[in-house]
Formats: sequence, C-alpha cells, structure tokens
Amino acid sequence: MSGVVVQNIERAELSIIDGLARCGVATVHEAQGRSGLLASYMRPIYSGARIAGSAVTISAAPGDNWMVHVAIEQLKEGDVLLLAPTSPCTDGYFGDLLATSAQARGCRGLIIDAGVRDVRDLTAMDFPVWSKAVHAQGTVKNTIGSVNVPVICANALVNPGDVVIADDDGVCIVPRARASEVLEKAQAREAAEEAKRVRLAAGELGLDIYNMRPRLEEMGLKYV
Amino acid sequence: MSGVVVQNIERAELSIIDGLARCGVATVHEAQGRSGLLASYMRPIYSGARIAGSAVTISAAPGDNWMVHVAIEQLKEGDVLLLAPTSPCTDGYFGDLLATSAQARGCRGLIIDAGVRDVRDLTAMDFPVWSKAVHAQGTVKNTIGSVNVPVICANALVNPGDVVIADDDGVCIVPRARASEVLEKAQAREAAEEAKRVRLAAGELGLDIYNMRPRLEEMGLKYV
Amino acid sequence: MSGVVVQNIERAELSIIDGLARCGVATVHEAQGRSGLLASYMRPIYSGARIAGSAVTISAAPGDNWMVHVAIEQLKEGDVLLLAPTSPCTDGYFGDLLATSAQARGCRGLIIDAGVRDVRDLTAMDFPVWSKAVHAQGTVKNTIGSVNVPVICANALVNPGDVVIADDDGVCIVPRARASEVLEKAQAREAAEEAKRVRLAAGELGLDIYNMRPRLEEMGLKYV
Amino acid sequence: MSGVVVQNIERAELSIIDGLARCGVATVHEAQGRSGLLASYMRPIYSGARIAGSAVTISAAPGDNWMVHVAIEQLKEGDVLLLAPTSPCTDGYFGDLLATSAQARGCRGLIIDAGVRDVRDLTAMDFPVWSKAVHAQGTVKNTIGSVNVPVICANALVNPGDVVIADDDGVCIVPRARASEVLEKAQAREAAEEAKRVRLAAGELGLDIYNMRPRLEEMGLKYV
Amino acid sequence: MSGVVVQNIERAELSIIDGLARCGVATVHEAQGRSGLLASYMRPIYSGARIAGSAVTISAAPGDNWMVHVAIEQLKEGDVLLLAPTSPCTDGYFGDLLATSAQARGCRGLIIDAGVRDVRDLTAMDFPVWSKAVHAQGTVKNTIGSVNVPVICANALVNPGDVVIADDDGVCIVPRARASEVLEKAQAREAAEEAKRVRLAAGELGLDIYNMRPRLEEMGLKYV
Amino acid sequence: MSGVVVQNIERAELSIIDGLARCGVATVHEAQGRSGLLASYMRPIYSGARIAGSAVTISAAPGDNWMVHVAIEQLKEGDVLLLAPTSPCTDGYFGDLLATSAQARGCRGLIIDAGVRDVRDLTAMDFPVWSKAVHAQGTVKNTIGSVNVPVICANALVNPGDVVIADDDGVCIVPRARASEVLEKAQAREAAEEAKRVRLAAGELGLDIYNMRPRLEEMGLKYV
Repeated sequence: MSGVVVQNIERAELSIIDGLARCGVATVHEAQGRSGLLASYMRPIYSGARIAGSAVTISAAPGDNWMVHVAIEQLKEGDVLLLAPTSPCTDGYFGDLLATSAQARGCRGLIIDAGVRDVRDLTAMDFPVWSKAVHAQGTVKNTIGSVNVPVICANALVNPGDVVIADDDGVCIVPRARASEVLEKAQAREAAEEAKRVRLAAGELGLDIYNMRPRLEEMGLKYV
Repeated sequence: MSGVVVQNIERAELSIIDGLARCGVATVHEAQGRSGLLASYMRPIYSGARIAGSAVTISAAPGDNWMVHVAIEQLKEGDVLLLAPTSPCTDGYFGDLLATSAQARGCRGLIIDAGVRDVRDLTAMDFPVWSKAVHAQGTVKNTIGSVNVPVICANALVNPGDVVIADDDGVCIVPRARASEVLEKAQAREAAEEAKRVRLAAGELGLDIYNMRPRLEEMGLKYV
Repeated sequence: MSGVVVQNIERAELSIIDGLARCGVATVHEAQGRSGLLASYMRPIYSGARIAGSAVTISAAPGDNWMVHVAIEQLKEGDVLLLAPTSPCTDGYFGDLLATSAQARGCRGLIIDAGVRDVRDLTAMDFPVWSKAVHAQGTVKNTIGSVNVPVICANALVNPGDVVIADDDGVCIVPRARASEVLEKAQAREAAEEAKRVRLAAGELGLDIYNMRPRLEEMGLKYV
Repeated sequence: MSGVVVQNIERAELSIIDGLARCGVATVHEAQGRSGLLASYMRPIYSGARIAGSAVTISAAPGDNWMVHVAIEQLKEGDVLLLAPTSPCTDGYFGDLLATSAQARGCRGLIIDAGVRDVRDLTAMDFPVWSKAVHAQGTVKNTIGSVNVPVICANALVNPGDVVIADDDGVCIVPRARASEVLEKAQAREAAEEAKRVRLAAGELGLDIYNMRPRLEEMGLKYV
Repeated sequence: MSGVVVQNIERAELSIIDGLARCGVATVHEAQGRSGLLASYMRPIYSGARIAGSAVTISAAPGDNWMVHVAIEQLKEGDVLLLAPTSPCTDGYFGDLLATSAQARGCRGLIIDAGVRDVRDLTAMDFPVWSKAVHAQGTVKNTIGSVNVPVICANALVNPGDVVIADDDGVCIVPRARASEVLEKAQAREAAEEAKRVRLAAGELGLDIYNMRPRLEEMGLKYV
Repeated sequence: MSGVVVQNIERAELSIIDGLARCGVATVHEAQGRSGLLASYMRPIYSGARIAGSAVTISAAPGDNWMVHVAIEQLKEGDVLLLAPTSPCTDGYFGDLLATSAQARGCRGLIIDAGVRDVRDLTAMDFPVWSKAVHAQGTVKNTIGSVNVPVICANALVNPGDVVIADDDGVCIVPRARASEVLEKAQAREAAEEAKRVRLAAGELGLDIYNMRPRLEEMGLKYV
C-alpha cells in the first residue's frame, strides 16, 4: 500500500465546501448523523480559524516528512493537507517553510495526527493547523509513504477528496459524495436553531420548547 | 440515586460569592487549607475569565445531556452549572443554544468533567466554561440522571449550593457553610501578600522575609 | 546528591544567549543536530513569548517548593529558573510572589516540569513560564533539594549554566560550551532558509529545490 | 483538615463484609445503583485476589508516606488501608516492610491512588494492592496528613469505616450504613443471574429472555 | 447510519482464518504490508490467548450495551465480536452473562474499544477479550446503534466479515478479500524466519545475514 | 551526535552486577540516594524477572530499528540492551528473532522506551523486556543512529557501561563508577531491613521502632 501517489482525485464543488465552512464543525457533524469526527486531541494552534477544503491525504512513516513535499505538488486551490502517520508520533513534521510552499499553491491549512512547529510563524502567516502536538522535534526524509490514498486519521477514515471542516471545536470529515446533501441539512439545522435561540434567549425553557416533561415523568424523574 | 431533581437548595450570599471571585482560585484554595480543588485537566475554553457562583449540580449518563435541560429550570441569578458524568466521557454535552438558555436565567458559566462545543460562539457570548475536553461530538436524550444531588467532579466532592470559584488556575469548591469564613481568610491572605510583594519587588529575598536560613542549615543544606 | 547549592556557575555570554533567542527553538534544535529538546508536554502559559537565558537548576521533592526560594538568591541578570521534581508532580510550585522576586533579580522566565499558578498575574507581569500543568494546588516547605546540580527535566539533561531557549514550539537546551558554535550554525541556517522561503513563496517546489525526484524514483515511488 | 487521627471509627459487621467480598465488585456496584466505583486506572498488582474490608483512610502529601505508619496503629482485623494523596503522585509509598506490619495487624490489603513497590515480595506474601502505578520511587517522612478522615480517592468519596470491595474488575466503596442492604440486593442479583446463565448457556438469546424485540422495533431498529 | 442490523455478511473460510491464527498478529501484520493494526492500548485481559475469527461489528453509544444483545443473535461458529463506541468510553459493556451467551453461539472472543468486566469469570471460561479498559462500571440499554456496519475501532477500519487476529501483541484486521493471499505470505514469512532463527541462535549476526555493512558504511556510520 | 558506534566500553565487574540484581530495584534505588529510576510507565512484559547487566545503549530514530542489529555485535556476556528513541514512539522495534540473536551473544534482556512484539515467544525464551508498550507495529531500516553513546531513556540519563537493574518494580541505573559503593550500601540496607521485618511481623509498630511519636507531636498531629 506504500509508495503510491494518486494524482487525479475528484473534489467537491468549492461553493459547497465554502458553505460547509460557514456552518462549522458542530453543525455539520450533527447534520451528517454524528459521524466523521476526528478524536478530541486534535486541537488548533490558534483560536478563531474556521476552514473547509478538499483533503489531500498523506500516509507517512513516524518521524519522516518526505511525503509532505510530494503532496504539496498535488495541491489545488481550496485543498487541505491531511497527514496520518503509520504509527503514533508527535514529531514536528511541518513548519513555516512547508507552509509557505503549501500556501503558495492554494492550500487552506493542515490537519496532522502528529506534531507541528514554527507555530509563531504559522500564526503570523494565517496558516491554520489542527494537530496532536506542538513540538520542535525535526524529521528525516528516508522512507517513502503514499499521497492521496485512504487513511485513518485520529480515529476517522478519510478518503482523498473528502471535505474537511475544521474550527475551534475540532475537525470533521464529510465524504465527497455526501457533501451537497450534508450542506443542505446543515443549513436547515442552522435555520431551525436560530428560531430556538431567540426563544431560549427570551427565557423559554428547552423542557417546554421540546416538550420533554411528559417523557421525563414517564421515565420516572422525581422533583423533590 | 438517579432520577431526582432537588428544587430548593440553599445558596451562599451573593456578596460573599462575589468576594470569593475577586480573590481568585489560588488564594481561596490556600485560605481553605488546600482543599476543594478540581483536577488540573479542567481548563478554561478562553483565558481571562474569573467567576464564582452557587453550584447547580448535574449527574448525567455518558453521552446524554438530557439533564442539562432539566437543570436550567433550576437556575437562579448567580448560579454556575456543574456537570459530572457517571463515567468518564469527552462528548460535547453543551453548546451555544444551551448557553443562551442558561445565560437568560442568570447562569455565570459551566464546569463540566466532560466535553463542550461551539466554543467560538461561547467565547463571543462571554459564557465561560471549564471542561476536560472540547469536542463537537453530540449527545442523546435517552437516560435520566439527577439534578442538585452531591456529585464527585474531577476528583472533588461538590454539594448543590456550594460555591464554585473558577479562573485561569482551575476550579475550586468552597462548601456553602464555610463560604463566609473562607472569604475572610482569603482577604486576610491577600492583604498579607500585598505587603510581601512590595518587599520582594524591591529585591528582598524570601529566604530573609520568611527567616528560612536557620532551618535550612539545620536540615543540612550545604552551599558550595 | 540532595542538599547542595552550587553558588558560582559559569554562564555563556549574554550576546550569544540573546542571539539564540532570536533564532528560536526550532532553528536552534536543528542547528544542534536535533538534540536537547524537552518533551512536548511542556507548554507556555501564554502565546508569543520567546526567551533565552542561563539555567539556574532546581531539584525539588514532589509538592515542595522550598528550593525555589533558595534558587532565587543565586539568580543573575539573564538567568532562567528550571525546576525538575524528583518524581512526577503537577502541583503549582510557583506563583506571582515568587515571580515578583525572581523578576526583581533579573530572571527571564521559568521552565518547570510540574505545575504553576497565578497565571493571570504572571501574564500581566510578562513573566513567561513553560510548564507541564497549570494548577492552583499549593506546596509545602519541608524537604530540602538542590540548586545548580545537573537535572533531568522533561526527558532532557540540563547542567547549570546551560542555555535554555523557549518559545511557542517548546524548550531546547544548548550546553554552555557549545553555545557559540550552535549560534553560528543557527544563523547560517536562518540565512539559508530565507532564500528558500522566497523561492517556495513563488511557487517552486521542494521536490525541485532539494532535487528529491531521482531518489524518490529510486526508492520506488509510483505516480498513478 | 490536616493533622488529625480519628481513633475510633465504626465498622460494618465482618459477616456482611465477607458476604460482599464473595459477590465481587461488578455485582456489588450494580446492586448499589452503579455508584461508588473508583476510576478504572486502579489496577491490582496481581490477578485473582478478591477482598473486602473496612476502610482505614489516609490523606497524605505527595511523596510522603509518614501517615502510613500512623494509620497502621489504627488497623483492626478485617481492615483495608486506603490512601489518597492530596495531589496526583505515582511514588511508591508502600513496600514489603509496611505490608509485613499491616498484615501483622490483620490488614487485608491496600488501595492507593499513587504508587507501590516491592510487588514481587507483596505477591509472595499474598498481600494484594490496587494502585495507580508500580514504581520503586521512594518517599520522605516530613509532612503530616490525616488518618480516618473522609477522602476523595480515584474520583470516589470514601469515609472511614466504609466497606471496600476489590477484585480484578477494580474497587468499589459501599457506605457503612448501606452495607447490609447492598449485600441483600447483591445476593438477590446473583441468584437471578444464575438462572439466566443457564438459559443463555443453552443458547437462548437475551433479546428473548429480556423481551427486547418490541422496544427495539419501536425505537426504529431495521434488519436488512 | 444508526439503527441498522445487517444479517447476512460474507465470511472468510474457517481454514484460512485458523491458519492466520496460527501465524499470530506480528507475522500477519508484516505479511499484509504493515496495515490493519489496532492501537497499542488494546490489551488482552489474560496472557497467552491467540484467536482469529470473522468480525461481527457493533457500533454503540457510549455507556450503552443494548446492541451487544442484538449482535449475539448474528453470531456464527468462528466469529469474533468487535465493538466500537461512537465516542471514547471505558465502561464495562460486557461481562460473564453476555460471554456465556456469545460462547454458546460459537463466538471465539471479544475486541472492544471500551471496557469489560467480570474478568475473573471470563478468564475461568476461557473467553478472551482485548479491551481499552477493565472497569466494573455498568451500562444502560436506552439507545440503538448498528450491527455489521463498517466501524473505526482503535484507529483501524473494520468491515463486517473481516478477519480479526488477536494475541499478546495486540489485534490486527485482515480484509476478508485479502485473507487467503495474506495467509500465504504469512506462512512464507514464517518459513523464512525459521531459517534465520537457526543462524542467529548459532551466533551469526543480522549485520551479515542481511548484508547490512556496506549500506551502513555508505550512510556514514562510524566505528570508534 | 548521530552515526557513531563506540566499540570498547568499560563495564563493572560481573560479581558486583550480580550482587545488585539480588538486591532488586527498590533497594538499589534507595541505597543510591533515590536517583537513577526510569519513569513508571516502563513495565515488564512478564512478572517475576529480575536482572542486572551492563548497558549497551542505542539511540534510534522513531520507527527504525536498524541500530539494534548494529548494537547486537557489541554485546558481551552479561550485557543488557537499552534503547532510547530520539522522539516518543511505541512501535515494536524488537521481536523474537532479535532476541534469539541477542541471547546467543549473552544478552540478559532489553530496556526499551518504545514498543516490543512477539511477547509470547519472548516469554517462552525467558528473555525479559521492560518497555513502554507492546505493539506488533513493525519498523524500517532507513536511518542511522548511534550505539554506546549517552542517552536519556524514560527520563533517566544512561551512559554505556552503566549498570541496569530491572525487576517488577521498574528499572534503575547505577553509574558504573558507583556500582561497588552502591552494592555495599544496598547490602547493608537489606541486612537492616531484615531485622526490622522480624519486629514488624511480631506486631511492633514503625511508630515505635523509628521513634516517630515525639516528632509527630511536635508537628502538631492530633489524636481525636
């Protein structure tokens, strides 16, 4: 399975991708039936970023970032790099030079189930990263891996071209084929939430809005 | 023990609660004899918040946030929600809709030994949360728990109506009955510290201010 | 080994130390042959700080901060305190009073393989700390340790007088005797990186700049 | 709260305690309404032990085992030592000498939310321990704590004299006042389980024995 | 995706499955190109077991074991249950009653990315389990999930009917369609290893057997 | 620092090494002034082994076991292999073939701050290993490291030729030059402990044997 670069992957439409970014991770995750979320240890290097893009996936050996260089050539405008090491690793695979290169090719950010470094520069460049660790530990370029193959990243399956949404709540993957349908559901959800937000802000209770009292009583909840 | 909502709990006076907030977690914890601190993995979703309030406690099943709706009805001005799952969980029990509802009823923040989501919105709303995780993972509403019963939260015992103090240093619980006494000790401590701060800033050493040299010598400390 | 304070340690020249600070942790770590890095769990209490200084080392019992007072007397302008507990501990050994005292004596920051507290005040004072935990948990003053002895801190060996560099990427130790040589290499590295950054920003690929294509082909990488 | 030894604590009857031991942790925990369980990181140093006893509790500073000596004097036949450090610690507070002393006074085992050592000797002595860590790291005797006060141990509240049940599944606490009632429920549970075990072993399904099919259908489960 | 039970899944031949069991996890994992391994936190409840079987997969809510009952009806001789919770959980989903039922229907063991209990009984029954935790914490039966759908378990993708191999080294998944080919490679590997074992046992060096010296020299390794 | 094999290292006398093995880790660690202990996550793959030997150290890249082959050539009767990866890794660097080779050259065991595999075979061979993980995950042979250089292993400094003692309590390092002195102290400690064990087994209290009562009273301990 190692040693392959898939060059032509399909991507979702940018308008759909951008729509998903506007909805954010929590809403998209709900709209998709609560699937596709990466593990909660994946955290942004700075607060406030919210992106979506098509996944260019990287399968790399622990402590070896050679494939990142290979993957950058495959990037198109609107892509997100997503790296899964073949075994757990916290090394800093990626820093400001690679970010400069990726950004020059239209990359919107990096998702890495490992470490990242130069976070001060990445922050200044507005290049967002979601990672398992921040560590200055360097890597080597001795072992080949693969680009644009399916990977398991932080306990989620990612196929190349899937839509990656990332913000302060974490990272969510939407399969490419479902992107349009999920966007519709997410937007419907947002609209419905807005109405509820107004009522809740006015002091109405979820207990009443969602008519929970009868079922709570039936389940045996006692007020004392 | 499950399936109970205690409706009328006693609370400390708001002036005492607000006084404890001004002292902050580290000082209150010292003033109370170094007890009542939650585990260090409880971290704020944003820096700089410092709150205190009366605990409205929630005991909830893992991955089930039904009881949060029930608890919100029990909130009074100056309260803090505090949720302890019945087994370890990182799911996002709480987001911006629940925060809107809680805030509308006077809630000052949330302490949760589990996950939270919509942190971007919560930050914008100025609704502080101390949690074990940030995760978009949703929850269900199928299992009842209890509200305003004693809970163990992040290795600390919390009774409903206890005073919760939270800031960048973590979260501390002051039993309701001791709140007034602890506030007095905390304020005394602050005054004493202020005097020492001035001397230390001027270059005096703790070794001299606290007269540590004789005891260090007696313990056998050698300067070489 | 316990109960010793070494009073006169050698330090690197301040101009070299300040040069290393300007290069930053990731560059210095590379320039030194990828050694000397502390574990990735050592995180700054606030973003953006970048310091370097001579290590005044502290070996302390778990939950006992007595030796910090002893160490502060040994500080000189441009020093950094570095504390390694003799067994794993997350207690808050250090707060704003100790920081006031250390700062008054020219200390630039603290590296602690344990906990810190009063982070709100430390942030306001511009006193940076890299720690394993933030916790309000207090400490006692009952057990002696040592100051300015070699310690193992977060999986790295630190000798007193070694140069400590710390920023958002973590913490790196440069042995005093190598400081000048490492600075030279780090500066050379920075210059070389600058040239590459320009080319990468213009869209050139690392694959071409570093001439990686022939070796990737030889290793068997297939494009499909 | 520190510096107190409570000498006369009440205990449950030994016959009840021994009955709870025979039921085991999982059954007792269920019979008690799923409360009282210590965190899952508390593991036995060897497999196969199953004990119950009255808790003699110890609150101790991190890395300081002085109070274990004090607690041993308070032991009676059928007791279990239970130590909670005042902040997280993995040091080896307890080894074969203390076990010899405790065993000579009728102690049945140790529950410690910290480390233990000499596990080879403890195993040979048949002195079971449930701990967070095994570590040879020694401790000091410089700071006083308390004996037979309420403690929070591995996220559970333990009062002196509570019944501790421990086996390969972990550790469970039964409040002294509930011991008799919980034993009855646990024994009833065991009897009911035995009947079900026979039916399940014969190939009957839980789906049918517990009549789950109608409710699963109502919830919307689809067979495809 | 939730609420589905797939009833007729394809399985690999039992002779192939049993052949893979004999090779063991480490050999199969190598033979398959180093893929399919579950995370290293998945540990057996007792040493020495080595099994293989067809995966009957379970996707379950945290703290809810209802779907285990549903899955048991789908078991055939030679199957292995494999449960992945929809978010991280350490509850004890499975104990001796469920094991009795599963064993009665030919199940060879359980792989669970969560907790298990009654390990003393499971050991006595010779029913092996690989789990993330051992915990007596019980579960509820309120939320439906799915059986025999693709799941991500401990960072690996598992499709129903895939071959699961488990022993003291962990757990490996072989896609059903590749089972026969992987068995062949694994057996070839075993034969080759046997020859090397004899030479190594006689004192020959891997450096010579694998002719590593020239390449090490070329890479710059220096003997001093 | 990478790419060096030091061929002639000094070792302690085998009689001293074997004496230290007989004392065990906990006693040696105390006798040495409580230093030299590896982190508590280093656990034996099976219970009951107790070894000592001269450290042949390996510094290796994450996921790359090439240097193990190089190190085996440097082994002498009575040595112990000790591997520290240059960044955190849980891969299985070592299995039964390497163990066969090492054992053939007189190696007594392996200490590895990473993973190991084939533990079933290693157990059958009586080749003990203390590791951070057990994982079948394989490694590559692409990057050179060093043999017999100083390394930091699980938070302890190890020089080649240092004495490694390992048993169920963990792993301790004794600097070669101190081996004889530490053995003497450890044996004296054992003799003293034996006398105390007899008194404690007879029911005497540590409080009296060590005359702790006056100092406890002075510290303010209250009996109630």
